[in-house]
This record gives sequence, C-alpha cells and structure tokens, in this order.
Amino acid sequence: MHTQTSTKELTPTALTKLGRAPQRGSFDLDKICAILDASPMCHLGYQTGEATAVIPTCHWRVGDRVYWHGSRLSRTMQTSQAQKVCLTVTHLDGLVLARSGFHHSANYRSAMVFGYPEVVADRANKLAVLEAFIEGLFPGRWQTLRPPSQKEMNATTVLSLPLEEGSAKVRSGPPADLAQDLALPIWAGVIPLTVQAAAAQPCPHNPADVTPPEYVRQFCLD
Amino acid sequence: MHTQTSTKELTPTALTKLGRAPQRGSFDLDKICAILDASPMCHLGYQTGEATAVIPTCHWRVGDRVYWHGSRLSRTMQTSQAQKVCLTVTHLDGLVLARSGFHHSANYRSAMVFGYPEVVADRANKLAVLEAFIEGLFPGRWQTLRPPSQKEMNATTVLSLPLEEGSAKVRSGPPADLAQDLALPIWAGVIPLTVQAAAAQPCPHNPADVTPPEYVRQFCLD
Repeated sequence: MHTQTSTKELTPTALTKLGRAPQRGSFDLDKICAILDASPMCHLGYQTGEATAVIPTCHWRVGDRVYWHGSRLSRTMQTSQAQKVCLTVTHLDGLVLARSGFHHSANYRSAMVFGYPEVVADRANKLAVLEAFIEGLFPGRWQTLRPPSQKEMNATTVLSLPLEEGSAKVRSGPPADLAQDLALPIWAGVIPLTVQAAAAQPCPHNPADVTPPEYVRQFCLD
Repeated sequence: MHTQTSTKELTPTALTKLGRAPQRGSFDLDKICAILDASPMCHLGYQTGEATAVIPTCHWRVGDRVYWHGSRLSRTMQTSQAQKVCLTVTHLDGLVLARSGFHHSANYRSAMVFGYPEVVADRANKLAVLEAFIEGLFPGRWQTLRPPSQKEMNATTVLSLPLEEGSAKVRSGPPADLAQDLALPIWAGVIPLTVQAAAAQPCPHNPADVTPPEYVRQFCLD
C-alpha cells in the first residue's frame, strides 16, 4: 500500500520552512513518504487552548495520505480534529562529534506534514485503511486475525491528513567544522544510530503449536 | 549532571493527562527524568499563529530543568519563547502483536513537559549548561574541544523549561487481548526495538594519530 508517487513536489509555505536550514529542506513527495514509512511512530502536535500538546502515536500511509487512530472518546482525537495540526516523524541517524561544541550536530531524517485532520467516516474505507496499517508492518497478518467487532470499530476514530503541505529535512555526513579547526588533535566523526529488533517475545498464552510467522522472523533479522 | 532528585511528584493538570490511559500515566519526577535522559532527541511543539508546529531538536537535562538550543535568529527559537510549549521525548520499545487488530499496540516510554521557555541569559550559566550537554553525551569531551568563540555564543540561544508540569506514560509487556481470543491459533507477542550504535565513522580530516576516545568506544559497545 506504500505506493510511491511520481516526482511530485509539495508547494513550500512559511510553515514548511520552519526550522529548516535551506540546504537541508526538501519538498519532494517521495522523500517525505520514505521518511514517513520508515517508522510506525510520529509526534502529533495540536493546540489545547491552554498550551500546545505533542503526543506520540502510530501513523501509517496509504498513497498520498497519512493516517493515525485512537479512541473515539480521547481528548486528543476530539480536540485535534478541528484545527490545523502538525504530524512529524524523525529518525535520529547519528551523533556528529565536531572539534568545537558549536559544530556538534545530529544526523537525522525528519518529515513534517501540516493540515486539517479528516475523519475516515465510511466504514468500508475505515476497515481498508486499518488493514493497510497492520499489513504495512506485518504482511499477511490481517487475514489471520480475529476480525474487528462493530463495537471496536465504533470505539476507534481514524484521522488522516493529505500530503499537501509538508517538507523533509535531512542531515547526513561528517561534521562541518571551521577549516581552521580541522588540524586540531581532536577525534571528530559520527556515531551512527539505528533501530534494531531483538528476538521476538511470544505471548505466554500462545498455543504450544503456534510458531512465529515469517514477517516476525524477518523483522528480527533486518 | 543528571542528578536524580527525591521521589518528587509533579502536580497533575488537565494538560498532563492528555492522551494518557489512567493506568499508564505517572507524575513521578524520577521516572520523567529517566525518560528525558535516555535520548538526546525530543519533539518540541509550539503555535505559529497559523498552525501548530512540531520540530525535532536535541535536549538535555540539568537537575530539575530541561534545555534545548538553536540559532538565535531561527523562527522556532524566537516564536516558541513567548508561549506555553510542550517538549516530548518518546522511546518506541516494541511492537505488540495481538490476536485482533484492535488490541495491537506499541510498547513505549514517553515524557511530556509543558511550560513557558526561559532564556538562559547569564553567560557563565549558558556556558555551563552547554558544557553539560556535551558532557552528558561524551564525558570528558568538553575540555578537549576548541572553546566557544564570542560570536558562536552570541549566535546561540539556549532555552529551558522547569520540570514542573509534565507526566510520563509507559506501556510495557505482552498484548492485552480479550480472554476469549487467547486460545485462537494466532502468534501473539512483542517485537522489542532498541537503538543501537554502529561502528564510529571517523572524520576524513582527523589527524592520523588521533584515535577514538573511550566514550566513543563505549557508545558503540553499549
């Protein structure tokens, strides 16, 4: 379902330039999609009236929309529907050690998407995007699960944003020290960071003859 | 500098209960500090006037305050100073595979801190907290670096929040399926996720006789 689109570029706006050193920003939709797809977790920001709130939640993408879900009754799901929110996904790829404190940095890939959340109201579409969420992480799992009950479907709100206003920001590579600092006798470089899956932990209630599916073994090998 | 305080509890407010299933929330300061300290990266949320923005940035803690920094001229640093912001740190600890789509979940540790950012204006204090940032990640490194210039200090704004209004939320353990689903022939369990450091990548400009310091080797062993 992670269909990559053509080399579409999003239109830059004042919002999409926030925090972006010009040389690090991009409006390339494929690049934004790749960053969104590389983690199941985003941070969603919205206004409560008293302050801004930033909540971690799971997200997923189907085509040119990014989705998240939650309890229909949760304040986050209710409050965030009526305003322009920001969904940000960041991968911390490394720590960058320079010859001065000032030039220390981080390597990362980050995507921000702005927009007014839309409720996925149609039941068939809601079921399809929830299936896409599970299948995007664990291909083949959805059809093996106990199907959602009406009560579970009613208790869940699915929201989405179109990938229309947003940007990507990426830093990679070695430290960018001042030329006159390069010869100093200081170790400089990058400590790369990656997210690794460890050995799967079976639920104690699993029937004795149930073994980990291929997608679980793959996750733990990658 | 990561001095743990006593068993202080923050006062719950409406904001600190956002998104928190009651059984997962905590106002224990030590727990909040441990979550803040376990990553150098947070997501900072603030209001731009047009929308909420969520920006990844590095943070660090000294005692009962959390700090971040950035270019004095950046719109993020300027806009976020005059309002109540939210700084959130989340560790995605695992994917939780249940017998129904509805009960799939994520294991995670998350801390949110709310407040009005305060500028670290005093030069000696600013230098001390910047030192604490580097030393918290790389003990012993600060004194080996080329010291900050006046120009670099002037170009950098350091902001902080007191750890007064905030909360932690943690989910851990196996899936929480319905009792009647436990006997289904479906593999359920947890895929644990961790952040790992790979072999350090020396900067090509390093003098030939400069070897990685102990703290770099430690990072890559942990």
